[in-house]
Amino acid sequence: MKQTLHIVKIGGKIINTPELLDLFLAQFRKIEGKKILVHGGGRDATLLAERLGIEQTLVDGRRITDIETLKIITMVYAGSINKNIVSKLQAMNVNAMGLSGADGNLISSHRRQNSNIDYGYVGDIDSVNVQLLELIVGNNIVPVICPLTHDGQGLLLNTNADTIASKIAVFCQDKWEVALSYCFEHKGVLVDVENPEITVESISSQTVDEMIKKSIIDKGLLPKVSNALNAAQSGIQNIVICGIDNLLNQEQATRITK
Amino acid sequence: MKQTLHIVKIGGKIINTPELLDLFLAQFRKIEGKKILVHGGGRDATLLAERLGIEQTLVDGRRITDIETLKIITMVYAGSINKNIVSKLQAMNVNAMGLSGADGNLISSHRRQNSNIDYGYVGDIDSVNVQLLELIVGNNIVPVICPLTHDGQGLLLNTNADTIASKIAVFCQDKWEVALSYCFEHKGVLVDVENPEITVESISSQTVDEMIKKSIIDKGLLPKVSNALNAAQSGIQNIVICGIDNLLNQEQATRITK
Repeated sequence: MKQTLHIVKIGGKIINTPELLDLFLAQFRKIEGKKILVHGGGRDATLLAERLGIEQTLVDGRRITDIETLKIITMVYAGSINKNIVSKLQAMNVNAMGLSGADGNLISSHRRQNSNIDYGYVGDIDSVNVQLLELIVGNNIVPVICPLTHDGQGLLLNTNADTIASKIAVFCQDKWEVALSYCFEHKGVLVDVENPEITVESISSQTVDEMIKKSIIDKGLLPKVSNALNAAQSGIQNIVICGIDNLLNQEQATRITK
Repeated sequence: MKQTLHIVKIGGKIINTPELLDLFLAQFRKIEGKKILVHGGGRDATLLAERLGIEQTLVDGRRITDIETLKIITMVYAGSINKNIVSKLQAMNVNAMGLSGADGNLISSHRRQNSNIDYGYVGDIDSVNVQLLELIVGNNIVPVICPLTHDGQGLLLNTNADTIASKIAVFCQDKWEVALSYCFEHKGVLVDVENPEITVESISSQTVDEMIKKSIIDKGLLPKVSNALNAAQSGIQNIVICGIDNLLNQEQATRITK
């Protein structure tokens, strides 16, 4: 029987709030067995860009990663956020190791091609180095992965953390029984954003469009849901969107199925 | 017979000059067998602090690492410099992996105690995780180590890269035959700073004071020489201060002996 590999992704709001991050890490620590943490960017990159007077270009509400922005996110994602999490986990006796996609050639990607919009230095993932993950988690080390990949030609590329978690899950499923958790500030996808106690039980490719129409899945949730659905459709059976309090028991978490 | 482990340290001037860095990495790539790269900080941290209007405090010519400075060097050392080097090496088919001292608990340290001067968040090294290095280099991955260590309590600490290279050498000598190279912008320690062709053949603890008196070893070189001498006195027999062009053949490099 395959061993379970827990892949947990945390996003901006948890990263931005030190108390939430500490609460999350205390729960993450309790996950038994092999585990991987993938973290997003948070608002520190935007704040740093503002302080440095670097203007952020948005096209259709999406930030363009120009070369100055790439430098900033490399500092913030791979530097401050990643090492902050790693040193906190080490203090909890979790032997964490921070990695970008370039480290050990963990995640290779190519620069996104889009005839309409140039997103800049944004990477679409080609492959995940499962052998490296085997080596690391096999030695009871917990990879802490930041949202940067590389093209193998010397370029780092900005890559969505939800997508990274999803792709790692898919690439790892031959080796492990993968459990993928997207952890954010609510217990699950909320039926009504005003009521944090009532969550959607499950989302599938059959129900997702209706939920988008009803605005249950809003713009902020869409990348999470869509990446989770991709993983489900590629064979991952255990996927949830959950909060910090129910990360372990998954009560009221929203299950994502194909 | 023990295998050789090459530990190469590069400093600020090479890191600050893209052409020199590329030249260095092309030579580093050619080193056969197991190898580790340790890099210093360079001036990017100072530039970023200036741009952010964060004043740098100097005491007796030494920079104090206050909390704001610590945040900056974490971004610059572990983020931009480290990942830049890693992605460049990956492009040369060197399977590099960037690490701070917190990653995998590689280098643990304690905050420096000094009754006269509070250096701030500066770490003195307690131990190096040789088992982790064995795991990494044993799998033909090349660690690229930035000058940050951790105290195991959640704090990252600024740590001199020359010292990191020296301590790694000493901790690794039971396992490997260590060759330690401090690589900088000259072929070796210069007899006369005006003439880059004539280098000092060797420096030992017997001759070092005389060379300091004669200003052959100036302030900038002192940490390098002193850390190299520490390694020599702790048993490392193959130590040089060298340049990029003679990194491989060590011609005209300055040997450091006990």
